[in-house]
Amino acid sequence: MAYDKSDELAINTIRVLAADAVAKSNSGHPGAPMGMAPVAHVLWKNFMKFNPKNPKWLNRDRFVLSNGHGCMLQYALLHLFGYNLSMDDLKSFRTIDSKTPGHPESHDTDGIEVTTGPLGQGICNAVGLAMAQAHTAAVFNKDGFKLVDNYTYCFLGDGCLMEGVSSEASSLAGHLQLGNLICIYDDNHISIDGDTNCAFTEDVVKRYESYGWHVVIVDNGDSDLEAIDKAIKECQAVTDKPSIIKLKTTIGFGSKQQGTHGVHGAPLKADDIEQLKEKFGFNPKESFAVPQEVYDMYGKHSSDGAAQEEEWNKLLAAYKEKYPAEHADLTRRLSGKLPEGWEKNLPVYTPADPAIASRKLSETVLGKIEAVVPELVGGSADLTGSNLTRWKSAVDFQPPSTGLGDYSGRYIRYGVREHGMGAIMNGLAAYGTILPYGGTFLNFVSYAAGAVRLSALSQERVIWVATHDSIGLGEDGPTHQPIETLAHFRALPNCMVWRPADGNETSGSYYVALTSNHTPSIIALSRQNLPQLEGSSIEKAAKGGYVLHEVEGADITLVSTGSEVCICVDAAKELQEKHGLKVRIVSMPCFEVFDLQSKEYRLSVLPDGIPSLSVEVMSTMGWERYTHEQFGINRFGASGPYKDVYKKFEFTPEGIAKRAIATVDFWKDVPNIRSPINRAFQQMI
Amino acid sequence: MAYDKSDELAINTIRVLAADAVAKSNSGHPGAPMGMAPVAHVLWKNFMKFNPKNPKWLNRDRFVLSNGHGCMLQYALLHLFGYNLSMDDLKSFRTIDSKTPGHPESHDTDGIEVTTGPLGQGICNAVGLAMAQAHTAAVFNKDGFKLVDNYTYCFLGDGCLMEGVSSEASSLAGHLQLGNLICIYDDNHISIDGDTNCAFTEDVVKRYESYGWHVVIVDNGDSDLEAIDKAIKECQAVTDKPSIIKLKTTIGFGSKQQGTHGVHGAPLKADDIEQLKEKFGFNPKESFAVPQEVYDMYGKHSSDGAAQEEEWNKLLAAYKEKYPAEHADLTRRLSGKLPEGWEKNLPVYTPADPAIASRKLSETVLGKIEAVVPELVGGSADLTGSNLTRWKSAVDFQPPSTGLGDYSGRYIRYGVREHGMGAIMNGLAAYGTILPYGGTFLNFVSYAAGAVRLSALSQERVIWVATHDSIGLGEDGPTHQPIETLAHFRALPNCMVWRPADGNETSGSYYVALTSNHTPSIIALSRQNLPQLEGSSIEKAAKGGYVLHEVEGADITLVSTGSEVCICVDAAKELQEKHGLKVRIVSMPCFEVFDLQSKEYRLSVLPDGIPSLSVEVMSTMGWERYTHEQFGINRFGASGPYKDVYKKFEFTPEGIAKRAIATVDFWKDVPNIRSPINRAFQQMI
Repeated sequence: MAYDKSDELAINTIRVLAADAVAKSNSGHPGAPMGMAPVAHVLWKNFMKFNPKNPKWLNRDRFVLSNGHGCMLQYALLHLFGYNLSMDDLKSFRTIDSKTPGHPESHDTDGIEVTTGPLGQGICNAVGLAMAQAHTAAVFNKDGFKLVDNYTYCFLGDGCLMEGVSSEASSLAGHLQLGNLICIYDDNHISIDGDTNCAFTEDVVKRYESYGWHVVIVDNGDSDLEAIDKAIKECQAVTDKPSIIKLKTTIGFGSKQQGTHGVHGAPLKADDIEQLKEKFGFNPKESFAVPQEVYDMYGKHSSDGAAQEEEWNKLLAAYKEKYPAEHADLTRRLSGKLPEGWEKNLPVYTPADPAIASRKLSETVLGKIEAVVPELVGGSADLTGSNLTRWKSAVDFQPPSTGLGDYSGRYIRYGVREHGMGAIMNGLAAYGTILPYGGTFLNFVSYAAGAVRLSALSQERVIWVATHDSIGLGEDGPTHQPIETLAHFRALPNCMVWRPADGNETSGSYYVALTSNHTPSIIALSRQNLPQLEGSSIEKAAKGGYVLHEVEGADITLVSTGSEVCICVDAAKELQEKHGLKVRIVSMPCFEVFDLQSKEYRLSVLPDGIPSLSVEVMSTMGWERYTHEQFGINRFGASGPYKDVYKKFEFTPEGIAKRAIATVDFWKDVPNIRSPINRAFQQMI
Repeated sequence: MAYDKSDELAINTIRVLAADAVAKSNSGHPGAPMGMAPVAHVLWKNFMKFNPKNPKWLNRDRFVLSNGHGCMLQYALLHLFGYNLSMDDLKSFRTIDSKTPGHPESHDTDGIEVTTGPLGQGICNAVGLAMAQAHTAAVFNKDGFKLVDNYTYCFLGDGCLMEGVSSEASSLAGHLQLGNLICIYDDNHISIDGDTNCAFTEDVVKRYESYGWHVVIVDNGDSDLEAIDKAIKECQAVTDKPSIIKLKTTIGFGSKQQGTHGVHGAPLKADDIEQLKEKFGFNPKESFAVPQEVYDMYGKHSSDGAAQEEEWNKLLAAYKEKYPAEHADLTRRLSGKLPEGWEKNLPVYTPADPAIASRKLSETVLGKIEAVVPELVGGSADLTGSNLTRWKSAVDFQPPSTGLGDYSGRYIRYGVREHGMGAIMNGLAAYGTILPYGGTFLNFVSYAAGAVRLSALSQERVIWVATHDSIGLGEDGPTHQPIETLAHFRALPNCMVWRPADGNETSGSYYVALTSNHTPSIIALSRQNLPQLEGSSIEKAAKGGYVLHEVEGADITLVSTGSEVCICVDAAKELQEKHGLKVRIVSMPCFEVFDLQSKEYRLSVLPDGIPSLSVEVMSTMGWERYTHEQFGINRFGASGPYKDVYKKFEFTPEGIAKRAIATVDFWKDVPNIRSPINRAFQQMI
């Protein structure tokens, strides 16, 4: 590819736009956009396949800006190429409710594939997108029908490479031989603390080679467009390894402060912008100016993209003729709808069924629904036998050359990489054809907190199968027993935290998790056996909280989750028999879903006039929102057989009864006890 | 060093002990102890310097078992070498309140340096311990007085290498050229999911070389004791790089299932243990049998260690003569006491002082106390200029060869490695001479959740300087604005979460954080300016919550933290002037510390008979414990100038007043309003 002055003009237009927008908002990061404008130009104009008029076209190339603080680069590109992002949107950079927030958010802005900014996440999302592409191609492509062959391109900086999460996903990507993943590392030697020499002197090339990646070095990323072009072509030619281009650039290229951390995260001064525009042949008095020829050049590429999609649509139509079932499956997946009647496969239990650990109940759910929900693609962070996340007939997602599976396989061996798994799942979900789940111990979902937060913010349907959910894991002890974990994720907006009490509730959890297209779920599951409860059902569980056991003229409501519900049932008997107290029991597997019910319903579950006590073997934080008194564990757990641990902390029928009696006593003089459901005002949502 | 049958006997004793203990508890991990017994024997008997009678001797070599699930190895060693760990303790493996829990816990058991089990943490702790050694040596060693020259040895497995946190710390360790750090990688090719080929095929040697480590391979870790010995010596000889030995071993060596994941995490069967004992020349009918000659052999090494400490104590006595000031400083640090009167340096403010961002107030605290608290060693995860964590005259902690500082430097450039920083700080704190703090944005403390949890569990005094603590960071937007973060860490046991409202409270936060020797603290600090409040003081803040503004016959109590307290002050004026309501204001910078106060005091702050409303710009979760109504943000934030964001969410005097009025209305018909401080029963602590 030959490059000329028109390319230079386009590149400088991007640089000047970024400088202008950051200056106008008086906040932001001009350095990366100005430094990476050349590679962005070459990649978007001469390699990337997309149609701005249909940003959801399945076979588009995916672009991820892992160094999300450089988002003015991405916003400028989206605008210039004709996405639904106007010049006014650029001018609204970093202002309230704009489409151009401080870091790119996928749910708000067309053309943003994944939400980035928290460093290290984007490259992992890109690995997930590339895995999704490989899987989708293996499942749907047929002879003569290469429906899916897109690339995933990812820009990243030093910060992303320093974050451990990128190491996790990069190591796995090398193992998985993801040939369609091409990353471009902005090697500008600058981070916020100054020269990377102060903390980051590792040999990145060698590190990525150690992961099994193909590595290319481009020495002049500021102006050698041919070299950039050649490097990308070289990476495309390597089909059995992910690639990374180490691109040496000058941060804030063109600024008087170029090459220093002064241009990283603060607007350029007015005189600096002035000289920049003069140097690049722009009118220093004008802001947000785009030469028409730049619009034209990029518009041409976008029209070509639209034509490519047209061609692809014809291919898809022919595919429909020849492979109607596959076509129907693919289009259904893309619509976000699950197959009609899938939920009939969810197992239902009666109290006559045996006691089973809810991790095992979860395994049964997966085994029953996997055939009817083919987009379900799961794995575990090296705890398969403990999480019980793999159905018997599953094939591993592996490069065929390993002899361990193939890319059509639906079971992912993540290795001991919880954070990487979480971030990869966000990429898998964002691709559009996959419903990802991943297993680990509940305690170690915390390792992935950064990724879970982004699942919630970017509204991705990601499911955590979080087993060993409490002190009930027993012997592994306090290092592995969650105390704060449920409170943490319950406090995270748009995240459903489930803790089912039996088989029906486990099915209910999966039902809601699978049908909540814009919300991640964490399903907390027991290691120990749990009896099938009298009074539970999928429908009731799907309300988030319900009356498991009703009594007229009750003295107290016990509210509980998961493995403690059955102990509450025994406590209720004890309270009735030994103390003459009438006890209602509420099971509350999911706060967030319960909160979505009508106030009338919620008050029917947690009514006025009766005191309530929550029972859950972890932090009581958050339970005050639903109950008058709380029985929990606000300290670390203990190592021992689980029954001994429960006894130590008095989570026994007697221990619960004691506190129930204290609760009744404490509230008996209060007239008209008010349910905590009643609030003085509505929370803003 | 020559090795013979007696060494083999000792090694097999360890193996058999591990198998016996796991069998007795019917739970645990025999594989790693049996596989790593040879290297443990060589290291502990012929290299490690320690005195079991004084496990806190400063110049002991540190041993970290990063693959903490293999803790029966460590327990067996501690017992055999004569630490305060009896055979009965081994027999109590994994039972309630034993000294031998399921994973090693430093606060419970002599000789356990750091709490491990959550994978990847231990090697980072080891990096911290090695950094602390380098720093302490640089500060205290003098010509002829090599007070501190210990090594840090760390065992780790595949799981630790897969976890991203280990990449972060390993990269930094290479940069820092930590010659006294020697790691031994148990290359047994097995993880829980089976052969590591399924997910972990990177070239570990090359990866560690890329970080700047010295790498040695030992091909037969099962029986070639000479090779292990030689490898450790070789690593000791390399003084300008950390070292890692890739030691090929057979997991569960001796078991019928050796070399498979069947021996990883489950007891050996009875017949397997029987054949194991027979093979190793033990009586298959006996359990927990230790040949006297093994006790003798190890006892000899321990006596030698005691003698070494004696010699060292003489050296220290001579040091005291020659360097009395340094000696006093060192012994004071080891005692855990801060210098007399240090707190007089904490800045005090009056309302006449200007409004200042609390991150800046924190910088002032650090600048004022650094000279009097020389053990204060801090840093930032590449946000120095934003966290304001570096006092002006600070020297960077760097290898002298970089020209950027030296090992006596007290400012650490962590790079963008929050989780690594957290885990390293645990090691720094565990060494005994350092009080570590580390900066990042509050939102990204979550990246380090795994390490923060272990600070709390292992009772390490670690301080997080967590700036940009809310939507008040403004333009960076929802990806960077914490919502769930305070709830998360408030729910974590033994973790103090501070959110000071002004200068006096910031000083108070530091006062409590520095003097809480067994508790980590997170100090959440604003980006935006905050006025100095009328009514605040260090002493009041140090109670965790206090009445900032008292009014007789008040209609409502507003309870708030950090940047919202001053808005509550304005809201109170508005409520008085426009609505005739009398408003008390409570500032509550730290829940955990408030909870430690007497009930009488707490009720004086949050009394009966008056409704209360909390005001904090994040998740309301947890506030129900203190207030009747809650005003917060249970959704994600927004990108824009911070005043616009506050306005959007109605955190203005008017917005607060509106909700205060609703609160007063809602509670006006309730007779004898009960303070939430009153509870039906005490929580177990």
